Amino acid sequence: MEELTNQMELFGLHSMQAYYWWCIALMFAIHAGFLSYEIGVSRVKNVLAAAMKNVMTLAVIIPSFYFFGWWIYNAFPDGFIPRFDELSLAALPWSQNMGPNIMDNESGIFWGAFALFAATTGSILSGTLIERIRLSAFLVLATLLGSVLWILAGSWGWHGEGWLLTQLGYHDVGAAGVVHAVAGFFALGVLIHLGPRIGKYTAEGKPNRILPHNMPSALLGLMLIFVGFFGFLGGCIIFMTDGNWITIYGTPTNLSAFAFNALMGFAGGIMGCYIASKADPFWTVSGGLVGIISVGAGLDLYYPGLGFLIAFIGGLIAPKIGEFMEKKGLDDPVGAIVVHGVIGVYSVIAVGIFASGFPNVVGPDITFFGQLIGAIVMVAIGFIPGYVVAYVLKKMNALRIPEEVEKIGIDVAKFPGSPYPEGIPSTEDKVTLLERTSKKSS
Amino acid sequence: MEELTNQMELFGLHSMQAYYWWCIALMFAIHAGFLSYEIGVSRVKNVLAAAMKNVMTLAVIIPSFYFFGWWIYNAFPDGFIPRFDELSLAALPWSQNMGPNIMDNESGIFWGAFALFAATTGSILSGTLIERIRLSAFLVLATLLGSVLWILAGSWGWHGEGWLLTQLGYHDVGAAGVVHAVAGFFALGVLIHLGPRIGKYTAEGKPNRILPHNMPSALLGLMLIFVGFFGFLGGCIIFMTDGNWITIYGTPTNLSAFAFNALMGFAGGIMGCYIASKADPFWTVSGGLVGIISVGAGLDLYYPGLGFLIAFIGGLIAPKIGEFMEKKGLDDPVGAIVVHGVIGVYSVIAVGIFASGFPNVVGPDITFFGQLIGAIVMVAIGFIPGYVVAYVLKKMNALRIPEEVEKIGIDVAKFPGSPYPEGIPSTEDKVTLLERTSKKSS
Amino acid sequence: MEELTNQMELFGLHSMQAYYWWCIALMFAIHAGFLSYEIGVSRVKNVLAAAMKNVMTLAVIIPSFYFFGWWIYNAFPDGFIPRFDELSLAALPWSQNMGPNIMDNESGIFWGAFALFAATTGSILSGTLIERIRLSAFLVLATLLGSVLWILAGSWGWHGEGWLLTQLGYHDVGAAGVVHAVAGFFALGVLIHLGPRIGKYTAEGKPNRILPHNMPSALLGLMLIFVGFFGFLGGCIIFMTDGNWITIYGTPTNLSAFAFNALMGFAGGIMGCYIASKADPFWTVSGGLVGIISVGAGLDLYYPGLGFLIAFIGGLIAPKIGEFMEKKGLDDPVGAIVVHGVIGVYSVIAVGIFASGFPNVVGPDITFFGQLIGAIVMVAIGFIPGYVVAYVLKKMNALRIPEEVEKIGIDVAKFPGSPYPEGIPSTEDKVTLLERTSKKSS
Repeated sequence: MEELTNQMELFGLHSMQAYYWWCIALMFAIHAGFLSYEIGVSRVKNVLAAAMKNVMTLAVIIPSFYFFGWWIYNAFPDGFIPRFDELSLAALPWSQNMGPNIMDNESGIFWGAFALFAATTGSILSGTLIERIRLSAFLVLATLLGSVLWILAGSWGWHGEGWLLTQLGYHDVGAAGVVHAVAGFFALGVLIHLGPRIGKYTAEGKPNRILPHNMPSALLGLMLIFVGFFGFLGGCIIFMTDGNWITIYGTPTNLSAFAFNALMGFAGGIMGCYIASKADPFWTVSGGLVGIISVGAGLDLYYPGLGFLIAFIGGLIAPKIGEFMEKKGLDDPVGAIVVHGVIGVYSVIAVGIFASGFPNVVGPDITFFGQLIGAIVMVAIGFIPGYVVAYVLKKMNALRIPEEVEKIGIDVAKFPGSPYPEGIPSTEDKVTLLERTSKKSS
Repeated sequence: MEELTNQMELFGLHSMQAYYWWCIALMFAIHAGFLSYEIGVSRVKNVLAAAMKNVMTLAVIIPSFYFFGWWIYNAFPDGFIPRFDELSLAALPWSQNMGPNIMDNESGIFWGAFALFAATTGSILSGTLIERIRLSAFLVLATLLGSVLWILAGSWGWHGEGWLLTQLGYHDVGAAGVVHAVAGFFALGVLIHLGPRIGKYTAEGKPNRILPHNMPSALLGLMLIFVGFFGFLGGCIIFMTDGNWITIYGTPTNLSAFAFNALMGFAGGIMGCYIASKADPFWTVSGGLVGIISVGAGLDLYYPGLGFLIAFIGGLIAPKIGEFMEKKGLDDPVGAIVVHGVIGVYSVIAVGIFASGFPNVVGPDITFFGQLIGAIVMVAIGFIPGYVVAYVLKKMNALRIPEEVEKIGIDVAKFPGSPYPEGIPSTEDKVTLLERTSKKSS
Repeated sequence: MEELTNQMELFGLHSMQAYYWWCIALMFAIHAGFLSYEIGVSRVKNVLAAAMKNVMTLAVIIPSFYFFGWWIYNAFPDGFIPRFDELSLAALPWSQNMGPNIMDNESGIFWGAFALFAATTGSILSGTLIERIRLSAFLVLATLLGSVLWILAGSWGWHGEGWLLTQLGYHDVGAAGVVHAVAGFFALGVLIHLGPRIGKYTAEGKPNRILPHNMPSALLGLMLIFVGFFGFLGGCIIFMTDGNWITIYGTPTNLSAFAFNALMGFAGGIMGCYIASKADPFWTVSGGLVGIISVGAGLDLYYPGLGFLIAFIGGLIAPKIGEFMEKKGLDDPVGAIVVHGVIGVYSVIAVGIFASGFPNVVGPDITFFGQLIGAIVMVAIGFIPGYVVAYVLKKMNALRIPEEVEKIGIDVAKFPGSPYPEGIPSTEDKVTLLERTSKKSS
């Protein structure tokens, strides 16, 4: 009997690991998607630069998240004073939990899932800055965002003992605030100093359209991001080894709730963006992200029809805000500040509007006020450091590539190789060619 | 003891949800694949239109499948008279099962998997109609197919109490009939009224070849569809919480059987199509789909060597039927009517030939006659409404885009933006460029 | 009580199947990735040939692996003398285990996962030989590698009773030797006879750069391979139905260990390659593969910081060896011989250096000597047959396409259709077009 109970426990641990392993795998599809997306959105002269930025994001965030990011999550639920309790010490890189350890079936797999979340914040940032940021500056910023800021926000608002939960009842199940809003507003802080791409605005300050060079690549990228989002959202639920699902806040939930709202939100966001953007393909497909993020914070709570509506409204506003920002001189080629930042905030606030009074296991009930404060914290923890560090980098003349490099393109200036050395010429098929050849010879 | 039993039950429910969650995630890869595929198959002037059609398919089918599709499945196993029993009532959008509900671990996740099946029927339809259908007409047709017709067919022939099973012993484990045949023949019904693309046929009625503008995009799309098919086929088995796998008909099976036949079918279909099409890349890669669908209805039953053979024969006939249809004036750019419609029927019939006499838990044994009737029902439930509704849309002048739009391309006429604004020019790399520059300056 | 134990056992079998089903699904993403990668690396004139080679690899390896590959694995753990015990007989294609069998929940799903491993060896080979090998010769070679050689190596060194384990304590958990080294050195053996592409070397033997025609396609392909690698590595752990994870050698491990080292290795490899290649995008992104393979053999053993370092060193050497080989007249367009062959050997040796003395459940402890011998065996079992069979094919004049075909391109010579019939022209959007049109008409 006891043996069976033990075995059951083991079996739970074991299935839990398999579950998060697939979350990690699918989150790699997010990065495949971002690569394809940002390549597509760049102009031909900056294609390789966009790709390199994406891949290097993973290479810097994963080890830094190993060496200190994971510790930050475990040490800072109380605010700015670190804990030195068992959990915090177990997350230090020299602890025996941070390596192969058959007595610890949790640390590695949770670390891995969180590391991919961290890498996602870096990829969100990446798109906003394409075609003019220095790779070195970007990697500093991505490390700061991915291995310090969002995970500090996570420790506060996406942790079973985080002060935003225990003090304010903050609810953000799908990480709309701690991942998307933080990353989006960090990107805004950087963008203010980085400035628009050369040629984006006329002398009078009117925006020109700089079109993605390869829309199919951009759209396929978005679709792959959607595939990966099921890894991301799947990583937002706790697989309990005793046979229950709970949210990161310890409240009961299940994947059925997630499936209802993720899918209805996805559809609602597309419809809203389709209408508001007058069938612009870029915005329409981005609408899927807008929708999922809109319902993200309350994925476990909404009636799916309401989820659809919240996402639909998110979809209606996103393109308008994007247009407004463009007019104000903010050149965000991928719309990340809107899609992740603004909509992330909207998602957190929506929980305050539609799910106020819902009880928490730890801390006070969900309130509009708590969600509002939470949203403000997310904006601040992203925006302020992004603004400050980008300012410093700019003063050091280390933020933006030189004008002449921007003009000829980063690929030509910086990278060996070239994206399309032959171009894509019209290729004739055998039939036509043979015909033509036989005509010639006759 | 009782506690342990309860926990075991809970654990089963919980693992079941995780399993279908991954099915849903991978089925999104089908849609990423269809997008890439249809973009590739279109001509440059219709690339964005193809992409938009794909994305909007998801946006209309998911909510309509929530509001009435799922109810149809649960209400109509008896034919045309709906049931109003517990299951049927639980599938109505205002029931407490159709939302977050920690006492119901099944509805959301099953609904989600079925919604993705529904979306797949829409994507199958989509390809046949590219480059000349109105988006509005398409969305009406896709909703009808995805949220009414196939799911009614599913209620009849892919449900533990469906009349095709209880009366005729119908067997279609991998949904070759209820998804593929229904969608393929619906597409045929529409195509008859829609007609071929301008320029597809000479004045004498001889077919011209209209080539895919981007074969790499089309082929990568097919490969992504294959990845997603493991989500689709995975969704065709019931994960019992007591530790057994059963088919949708309640007969015992396992994923080992599915793996054997899915893989051998995939390989057999490619080989058959390779030979029959004389190494045409479009048909050869499509052969993977032909193969999987050929063995789909009997995935749980065949000796894998037989599965290979059935798929190989499917592969031999598919390109020939495609050629025949093309000669008859049916312009199906992606071959969906053959690959899904004809091969879906072939798959259902093959079970009648090779697995006749196999016993069912509910209803009579599998018979050739039962499979034949089942196949006819699938053809009828797809073809007739597709034919009728497309006829009405045509009479309303709402089916096809105006001739001048078709000539200049839907992208130019309807969508802001453009797929390749710079084209794909030949890009020089640093070495070459510097050389050339230094020559110039010298 | 007994019932509960039985149910638990059943439940374990059942979850195990689900786990490997997802491994198979994700390994299909490896093939989607290889297709996109090799298409991208080819020149425009050989795009369809590259795609066809990839797809046909799956079509020949899957059935041959069914008919004899799986038997080889189960029959040859002792060396060259086959066993005829129960396991070996159960793997023969006429056994009742090699088909749908509700009493056998293992054979099909394990066979499926191994078949995808087999297909991966074929895809590794494929890249090295693009743009000049005959499809027929390639398929012979791929079948030999995928359904005979690597699986014989697997029976020796990746099997609970393989002689490399029982005699030498060989440790190669992530199949760095048995899959990657074998495939890489087989490719080398073939390449020596196949020779470089026309134009690769000047008359003086100096290498020219032949650039990938579509770097975005190549890089997206690599990213999809990374997604798929989680299926591959996931398939390298044994999901025990009693609630434990073990390595293929029976030693305890868990997915936490795999997650730590796979991710840290991935990051380390990218960084190393980035530095050593001076930011070459092709090598940098390949660095992810270099890194994962570098730590592959000891995925269960390394402290993650060490894993990062081993991968980083792998990353530093890989581009240098690639350069060296290129100078020596070995034209490997995708670098597979280095990335898979050389780094596979490095990975096996690294276990001998860093994990010597680690105890095995079966056989002696891990030793440097054992790993060295193991590595030599892997090189030999790949290289010698590849060299010999390619020599024979060359003598039969069946290895390489005729010079004139190579010059005009395989696509034009062999395949109906063409990859980009319209080219990718610059497409104008509505605004511009209407402007231009109105100007014209005025």
